[in-house]
Amino acid sequence: MRTRVTELFGIEYPIFAFSHCRDVVAAVSRAGGMGVLGALYFTPEELELELKWIDEHVGGKPYGVDVVMPAKYEGADVGDAAELVGRLQSMIPDRHRQFVEDLLAEHGVEPLGEEGAGKVLLGWTDATGRPQVEVALRHPIALLANALGPPPADVVEQAHRRGVKVAGLASNARHARKQVEVGVDIIVAQGTEAGGHTGDVATMVLIPEVVDAVGADTIVLAAGGIGSGRQIAAGMALGADGVWTGSIWLTVDEADTPERQRAKLLAATSRDTVRSRSWTGKPARMLKTAWTEAWESEKSPGPLPMPMQFMLISDALRRINRSGDGELATFPVGQIVGSMNQVKPAAQVVYELMEEYIEAVERLNTLTSAD
Amino acid sequence: MRTRVTELFGIEYPIFAFSHCRDVVAAVSRAGGMGVLGALYFTPEELELELKWIDEHVGGKPYGVDVVMPAKYEGADVGDAAELVGRLQSMIPDRHRQFVEDLLAEHGVEPLGEEGAGKVLLGWTDATGRPQVEVALRHPIALLANALGPPPADVVEQAHRRGVKVAGLASNARHARKQVEVGVDIIVAQGTEAGGHTGDVATMVLIPEVVDAVGADTIVLAAGGIGSGRQIAAGMALGADGVWTGSIWLTVDEADTPERQRAKLLAATSRDTVRSRSWTGKPARMLKTAWTEAWESEKSPGPLPMPMQFMLISDALRRINRSGDGELATFPVGQIVGSMNQVKPAAQVVYELMEEYIEAVERLNTLTSAD
Repeated sequence: MRTRVTELFGIEYPIFAFSHCRDVVAAVSRAGGMGVLGALYFTPEELELELKWIDEHVGGKPYGVDVVMPAKYEGADVGDAAELVGRLQSMIPDRHRQFVEDLLAEHGVEPLGEEGAGKVLLGWTDATGRPQVEVALRHPIALLANALGPPPADVVEQAHRRGVKVAGLASNARHARKQVEVGVDIIVAQGTEAGGHTGDVATMVLIPEVVDAVGADTIVLAAGGIGSGRQIAAGMALGADGVWTGSIWLTVDEADTPERQRAKLLAATSRDTVRSRSWTGKPARMLKTAWTEAWESEKSPGPLPMPMQFMLISDALRRINRSGDGELATFPVGQIVGSMNQVKPAAQVVYELMEEYIEAVERLNTLTSAD
Repeated sequence: MRTRVTELFGIEYPIFAFSHCRDVVAAVSRAGGMGVLGALYFTPEELELELKWIDEHVGGKPYGVDVVMPAKYEGADVGDAAELVGRLQSMIPDRHRQFVEDLLAEHGVEPLGEEGAGKVLLGWTDATGRPQVEVALRHPIALLANALGPPPADVVEQAHRRGVKVAGLASNARHARKQVEVGVDIIVAQGTEAGGHTGDVATMVLIPEVVDAVGADTIVLAAGGIGSGRQIAAGMALGADGVWTGSIWLTVDEADTPERQRAKLLAATSRDTVRSRSWTGKPARMLKTAWTEAWESEKSPGPLPMPMQFMLISDALRRINRSGDGELATFPVGQIVGSMNQVKPAAQVVYELMEEYIEAVERLNTLTSAD
């Protein structure tokens, strides 16, 4: 199979796999797709180690890194990261801290030990995102993706100078056009059914809109609801050059998804997700649990703006995964979670996706040519 | 093009067009698709006239009728329609009536004249839906569709005895299976991006789920977000046998959509819709306007359960279309509204859908066979 995007990167299949787990990234790239490591949860030092590991295990195949750098938001100017974290911490109201503590106590969740606390703000801001970009660009990455709007123009330039292509996620046509204007090479058009930060326009409607808006010269990947070969065929039929997947890698053999969450993901149906501000302050699709419901309840103080909400809750989320009744455990995931029912090696998932894709296209041909 | 559904009905294209406008229904059927008349807004006597007109103008081509018969809901038992309407009217709180009157006054909307008032409950209940079914089955219809879950089993039998196929809309796999159990022939699997009553699972995720859930013997049509040939190809790639469209017919030449609403539809983007209970009490996707926002505001008494909400507001909606500042005017429509920017004859829309479908499949073949 050959599309503009397989040619651009010298990969076999136009399947991009976003994951926070280095094992998944390396496995997908080795299988002929393109693994993309989500840098969000890593300090620059940790990211350095992860990428070194990937370099040693990816067998010379191309891979990418995904950072989270918003254009800007309130109180989060470029500056010293440590100072910024302190300033943002002080902006979190006591009422919100109390709400989280009460909720955790209600569900029997214990405090974190010393070792885990304090990793509250890694990506999310220009000041904390840039060191990740610097680390990433010291490695032989093929792609730098940004999950929140267009990356700053100088970051795009820096990547291009090193021969690294830049991808940006967009959930509407206007944002996609803006990203092309600042030099983004690949638009990941992501529908509302996707996991994590999403807009409200569905993939079916969004992809043709974005393809038409950015014009024939820009590569578009379809994201949101892609977890089978039929869905890849649909994404390509809508005009995309390839697909961007995320959720389906959370339950593969190689994934380091905490057991409590993995079990919930395997059991969930496509109706068990919700777009909620309770993770980062911006609407993100995640598993609907007692956690997301509590933030919608009458007692809720309402989520804080990005990046304070994640600072407020990041320790809480880790505590929830270690103790308590498990009811609160949640995870960013898309509606495709309904078909994530089996644990398989990542490479097998890649091959099955392509087999089913071919079957879907063959069926379409049979229907179309009959007459 | 030949699929199970074109063979079943002897139609040229597997494109179903839902419309409340008889001209659109006849035009689509004549062009080789299948027009389906929404019966909701018609008394049995009016429906009789509409279908008579279609019989005379459809050129012998097959067409369908869509009714709205819920399995059941509170206070709406089988019984005399007039008595039922009276009983339901008395259940509408004064606070709700006052909220609507205040909202209309705020926007300069005038009262209805004598001629328009009183058509408050037509479909929506078993008692009011059955007379519509009786009228429909006296005409040479090819399809009886039900917009709210499975139709009562005896209605399915009645249709089958007359050689009429039955279609049911489903927004999740469990409901689809239930419909097959009561004898429904065709499942219209409708994603959240669709206009009118919708669930929250997107078309991209829903179609394969429903196709797998109902098994190989049941015909599935993809609905929600279908407004171009690329989207038809995507729906078929996902496993559907055809597509069900609705929104795109609101702005064709033949449509009797009120001018005020048509102008808003032509101007709207894919982000200008919202799932709201403010139309019928059940979540329905519609144009986001001052109307939907008012029902979400702090002053809102909250929508009433179906069928009281529609009884409460049906006169108000007609008043809004006749006078006032236009801000409140809304309409059930899907996210595809963003690409409804031109007024064309219905037949031209059908032909363009098929041309673009063929192009999309050809592109897919070119990508897939290269290597």
